[in-house]
Amino acid sequence: MKRVYNFSAGPGVLPEAVLQEAAAEMLDYQNNGMSVMEMSHRSAMFQKILDDAQNDLRTLMNIPSNYKVLFLQGGATTQFSMIPMNLLKNGVADYIVTGAWAKKAAKEAKKFGKINIVASSEDKNFSYIPDVSDLLLSDDADYLHMCDNNTIYGTKFKKLPNAKGHILVTDISSSILSEEIDVTKFGLLYAGAQKNVGPAGTTIVIIREDLVRTDLPENMPVMMRYDIHVEKGSMYNTPPTYGIYLCGKVFKWLLNLGGIKAIQKINEEKAALLYDYLDQSQLFKGTVEKESRSLMNVSFKTNNPEIDAKFIAQAKENNIVNIKGHRSTGGMRASMYNAMPIDGVKALVAFMEKFEKENI
Amino acid sequence: MKRVYNFSAGPGVLPEAVLQEAAAEMLDYQNNGMSVMEMSHRSAMFQKILDDAQNDLRTLMNIPSNYKVLFLQGGATTQFSMIPMNLLKNGVADYIVTGAWAKKAAKEAKKFGKINIVASSEDKNFSYIPDVSDLLLSDDADYLHMCDNNTIYGTKFKKLPNAKGHILVTDISSSILSEEIDVTKFGLLYAGAQKNVGPAGTTIVIIREDLVRTDLPENMPVMMRYDIHVEKGSMYNTPPTYGIYLCGKVFKWLLNLGGIKAIQKINEEKAALLYDYLDQSQLFKGTVEKESRSLMNVSFKTNNPEIDAKFIAQAKENNIVNIKGHRSTGGMRASMYNAMPIDGVKALVAFMEKFEKENI
Repeated sequence: MKRVYNFSAGPGVLPEAVLQEAAAEMLDYQNNGMSVMEMSHRSAMFQKILDDAQNDLRTLMNIPSNYKVLFLQGGATTQFSMIPMNLLKNGVADYIVTGAWAKKAAKEAKKFGKINIVASSEDKNFSYIPDVSDLLLSDDADYLHMCDNNTIYGTKFKKLPNAKGHILVTDISSSILSEEIDVTKFGLLYAGAQKNVGPAGTTIVIIREDLVRTDLPENMPVMMRYDIHVEKGSMYNTPPTYGIYLCGKVFKWLLNLGGIKAIQKINEEKAALLYDYLDQSQLFKGTVEKESRSLMNVSFKTNNPEIDAKFIAQAKENNIVNIKGHRSTGGMRASMYNAMPIDGVKALVAFMEKFEKENI
Repeated sequence: MKRVYNFSAGPGVLPEAVLQEAAAEMLDYQNNGMSVMEMSHRSAMFQKILDDAQNDLRTLMNIPSNYKVLFLQGGATTQFSMIPMNLLKNGVADYIVTGAWAKKAAKEAKKFGKINIVASSEDKNFSYIPDVSDLLLSDDADYLHMCDNNTIYGTKFKKLPNAKGHILVTDISSSILSEEIDVTKFGLLYAGAQKNVGPAGTTIVIIREDLVRTDLPENMPVMMRYDIHVEKGSMYNTPPTYGIYLCGKVFKWLLNLGGIKAIQKINEEKAALLYDYLDQSQLFKGTVEKESRSLMNVSFKTNNPEIDAKFIAQAKENNIVNIKGHRSTGGMRASMYNAMPIDGVKALVAFMEKFEKENI
């Protein structure tokens, strides 16, 4: 069996131990004689899988009891619509635009209300997190939206925006479970599972219960209503059962590791290995401001696109794959999600050192 | 390893050969060093998985080139909204209500237009398919909606409704790929994958290209627009990659078996075994009209709910599981999807014979 070091930005690497368990249980989950995929979502077996997943996520993220946890479908993109459709009362919201996804979220929200861009880093191709300590927010804004970690560029908020009493909403698709976060600072947090949690097709939504409105327009599609999903415990219709099962396994893997504090320490070590190397390299350089650096996604390049291409190709020959940067940034990007072992980062840095010697 | 005969109505049994392949490939798909779950959806590897799945489904169902095939999220329930949101022009549609799901589809559609129920079998708890040869349709109906196979009750349309020139739309969640169907009779066909195709979380939509409208209201959520999904080849955002991979494996399994003609023959044999037994049994009887019987879902009961409960419990001890009927019908239901081997039906009938002797 071959395994590579997979630095994909998402869907991304999953813990090998989780995949091994899933393979072993594929035809027979816990002596029930069937795969989790073949189980009725109304069965006690699956209800336990769902309940365990929810409880373990609550433990990991220290989610208070006045927050609801939902496992939905449709990815973060569906949340771009659901958030304004469910949260707008005054019809006004503020958005911080720190990347392509935050920009898409704002664009989608404009269909449903008056959206103000209160901060943006688009002037420098999203290579930094703007100062958000004293934003000019709309008095009647129903919420302030941010994207915590910007996968494409490799930036992350180090300090939360001063929301000045407004509800803070955050996309945590590429930072969920990577470091500690204070859920109580937010009204709603959401993440597509496919970067740091599980397979594509499951979306995690954490919503403060007072934001789960029932006084919504009559003509809202039923699947776009948080209240329905809350009322039905994520089972208004058949949920993505296998995806939830795998997310649950990842949660247990993290708990066994020591929780978020422990994985954050490992993630910081991994990131330091690569950033420290970049900071002294003569060939490679990081592409974002140091103060905005993400632990999860590290963007870097040489000063020559041909050398970048050569590096990417040779890396692949050395089983270091999916490090090509996004087309909007060029260069390279190494996504180092929780499941990327520190040995993978060591292998990447060792290969970069070797390549640098040969190409400078 | 234990395997049971799993008669679940959905999520339901999957071909054992497919699960075995998936388990074997879990950590390393075709020597790429990663699981399909860990692949970028933008990679050539995954694009081939998606293209193969689409092409194989086209072959199996003989889908003409003027139909688009989409792999979406959100289940049939999301289609209940998307269909009226995308197809209503005059704001009028006709619905045939032959079960709880068809009724839900109509109820959801009422949010978006004037919906007429042109036929219903609710008067007899959906135990038959009404005469649909000469319905009083709305002149200006944008489409006529039906649910081909009614999972809860075990009924199926044996003859298509006379749509009188209107566009026919059908939910085929529990009959897709079970028997031959003439796609050209429909404008749109849709199915949640979790009954007869793959894991929950993937929805198949087959839509005639002239129905893919772009002149839609500005404020429609982007994920609810067929035109966007068509334009982006089911990859506007990250699709349910692992679900699509498994659907693709089931398509190849069916092709190797000889396609729909071959599986239909097997399904007819399986259904005949059970229905023939029911028709002569002194203890059990089928609950729907003979002319409306589904090949996929067979509902039956004794005349005593206590005997039903005893039967269900004893069946489970004999590895015949998930045969409890839906709460709205009571009794028993055996769902015999493509992946249920004929030996499973033989085992069920043999157990029923034994139980009948002991309990009459």
